[in-house]
Amino acid sequence: MTQRPLRVALLGAGNVGLEVARLLTESAGDLRARIGAPLELVAVAVRDAAKPRPGIDPSLITTDPAAVVARTDLDIVVEVLGGIEPTRTLLLTAMANGASVVTANKALLAQDGSTLFEAAERAGVDLYYEASVAGAIPLLRPIRESLAGDRITRVLGIVNGTTNYILTKMDEDGAEYADVLREAQALGYAEADPTADVEGHDAAAKAAILASLAFHTRVTLDDVACEGISRVTAEDIRAAHDMGFVIKLLAIAERLPDDEGVVVRVHPAMLPREHPLASVRLAFNAVFVEAEAAGQVMFYGRGAGGAPTASSILGDVVTVARNRLAGHRGPGHTTYADLPVLGIGAAHTSYSINLRVADEPGVLAAIATVFADAGVSIQVVRQDGSGDDAHLLVRTHKATEAALADTLGRLRTLAAVREVVGVMRVEGEAGN
Amino acid sequence: MTQRPLRVALLGAGNVGLEVARLLTESAGDLRARIGAPLELVAVAVRDAAKPRPGIDPSLITTDPAAVVARTDLDIVVEVLGGIEPTRTLLLTAMANGASVVTANKALLAQDGSTLFEAAERAGVDLYYEASVAGAIPLLRPIRESLAGDRITRVLGIVNGTTNYILTKMDEDGAEYADVLREAQALGYAEADPTADVEGHDAAAKAAILASLAFHTRVTLDDVACEGISRVTAEDIRAAHDMGFVIKLLAIAERLPDDEGVVVRVHPAMLPREHPLASVRLAFNAVFVEAEAAGQVMFYGRGAGGAPTASSILGDVVTVARNRLAGHRGPGHTTYADLPVLGIGAAHTSYSINLRVADEPGVLAAIATVFADAGVSIQVVRQDGSGDDAHLLVRTHKATEAALADTLGRLRTLAAVREVVGVMRVEGEAGN
Repeated sequence: MTQRPLRVALLGAGNVGLEVARLLTESAGDLRARIGAPLELVAVAVRDAAKPRPGIDPSLITTDPAAVVARTDLDIVVEVLGGIEPTRTLLLTAMANGASVVTANKALLAQDGSTLFEAAERAGVDLYYEASVAGAIPLLRPIRESLAGDRITRVLGIVNGTTNYILTKMDEDGAEYADVLREAQALGYAEADPTADVEGHDAAAKAAILASLAFHTRVTLDDVACEGISRVTAEDIRAAHDMGFVIKLLAIAERLPDDEGVVVRVHPAMLPREHPLASVRLAFNAVFVEAEAAGQVMFYGRGAGGAPTASSILGDVVTVARNRLAGHRGPGHTTYADLPVLGIGAAHTSYSINLRVADEPGVLAAIATVFADAGVSIQVVRQDGSGDDAHLLVRTHKATEAALADTLGRLRTLAAVREVVGVMRVEGEAGN
Repeated sequence: MTQRPLRVALLGAGNVGLEVARLLTESAGDLRARIGAPLELVAVAVRDAAKPRPGIDPSLITTDPAAVVARTDLDIVVEVLGGIEPTRTLLLTAMANGASVVTANKALLAQDGSTLFEAAERAGVDLYYEASVAGAIPLLRPIRESLAGDRITRVLGIVNGTTNYILTKMDEDGAEYADVLREAQALGYAEADPTADVEGHDAAAKAAILASLAFHTRVTLDDVACEGISRVTAEDIRAAHDMGFVIKLLAIAERLPDDEGVVVRVHPAMLPREHPLASVRLAFNAVFVEAEAAGQVMFYGRGAGGAPTASSILGDVVTVARNRLAGHRGPGHTTYADLPVLGIGAAHTSYSINLRVADEPGVLAAIATVFADAGVSIQVVRQDGSGDDAHLLVRTHKATEAALADTLGRLRTLAAVREVVGVMRVEGEAGN
């Protein structure tokens, strides 16, 4: 039995869109065999129709995306435009008109995913978005389906290639942040305006998407505590290195014990060098998922780039196409657990605190007393230098952010503490 | 709307089966919310009914698995009995009677998967088997679904925990194989009869399953070239170490260029220490998947154990349950590509060859000529010792196994070559 072709429209034909179009053409035979019907590209909406787009039939090109999604004969709309509007309106229209959607739009999903999920539910269509987090790495489907019989307790990952490239170069070459950023911009690893990457906003959007799926709870970008890497210095990295640690920008989503709530945060953190995430170099991404029965599972691969992202999109297209042929939808988005989303004050981690202190007898005892009074247990203390430059590096056991803030407040009132030079969170220590 | 409960029967209640039963009970609320209907455990078939099984309602226990699968009211049969018969007959009966099957039985799938797949197709039920390869690691679903829009070229992995435990200990402690095996047996990491693990049969079954999925081609256990680790010596590991390599038992499934065919093999191989698989220690598993658009993607986690394997099984149970509620099946098994499955002679890799040679002028030239005549390009030559104990370590560029066999045959005819002491394949070198 020959099945009718499934009609695919593409919104956006930049780097990723062109790769999607290329794969649809070059792998047509494989895709047809895997789906059970051919895919037919019927429209490609672009901003600038004059740009040459080798491999795309020019008669499919249009600058009117609204006209594309107004069609009622589309099976699948692939969206790689990015941005919030007009993209949201386009996708809502596409779904209302019966098309399933495959999107890579992390910003829109993290900011207003629920509007999209509800629209998909209402229209009885699929909404898939594997490419929105960690590019080519199969991650959302494993969390949503493979681990659906388990209880995920934590997701910990490197999900932004630009910042990981910068931190890797700072670690390996001892260079300063500003110099490496300039180099990354010259090489195309960082944008001319790098804010979204280096301030952690991109990673925070991905953390919100991961947390929503992992904990069956609605988590939006606004719920994510976010700190970028622009204040990480070569000195921070050297100090971490001396203690056997590396600094990475981590996205962390945790379920607190007894379902008290979830905390989602993005910030630079020290990781032990032997931790598997510590060896994730340059623009690669990797994500650890911890579940009660499965233990720790890690996913690693290319987090960005035209072809890797297109691979991920095409995987979703195949699933959505199979679903349409069978006349059903994949599992919908659930938020049944509806756990409280708490601020970073509830997060529980270890800290490395760099203090400039007076070099006089009794200082360590006074400082240790402050930590004890605030209920923060000290793991290691290291003293560097002497005289006016005496530094104490204090690494704590796990404590809440609230207890840490309390400790820092008390330390600042001590005459012997000249300055709290820096505080860095520590993640991934064994048995801590 | 309240959905009717889905009836689950469990065949086997060993380590994994008990964990499956425990999760079905303890996570009942979560599972119900994720599926949209409750799961009800209705029968547990065991060998010995007298054994205490805490947490399982004794009235569900039976020693008659045939009576369980004869029921026509089952939704899902979970099989953790293992073995070929009577398990195959039980599963065929279960499917014919309308139940979907979730199994961890790698031996049965690798030996006679097609019989099971055809039965599932005929009965219109699902057959899921994520737990059969790499325990808790989501791997089969990502290959089958996430990468369904891409072309997988290679799967390279550590898929047997026992052998990886032994090789890790040999590498880190410098110990001999027999001593580490005894220790592994005492600790429960190796069976009393370790043959299936140490001779590579377990890994070969998993390689056959991975290759079938990755290449949409029927690959059975008999198609897999298999060599275990029982002949790896402390000296081999030391020599590899000195050159910056580590020895791992790898399962490798490759698609040859131009779709000439696929080659599937399991054997010890040298990996560069900086390769991500080199740092996979003890009983952990990890699998690299290389695809044309996605590039390299790695999956890492616990490859065995009751709870991790049960997590994987429950993930499949949730999918199968959702499918039944929606009245459809997941994507079936396809072998549409039907590529020729070639012997190891067609494999293409690098080699490290250890030769004991006469210590006289012209020997290296004579040996280099032999390699050149056989069309095998030399990458590095290292000479150790002198006099009667002169050794040459030759590392080649990539060549076919056939060309290597030809080279070794010619080398054995050279008077200057006293002995071909050993040959080890080399995988994972950059740009090779």
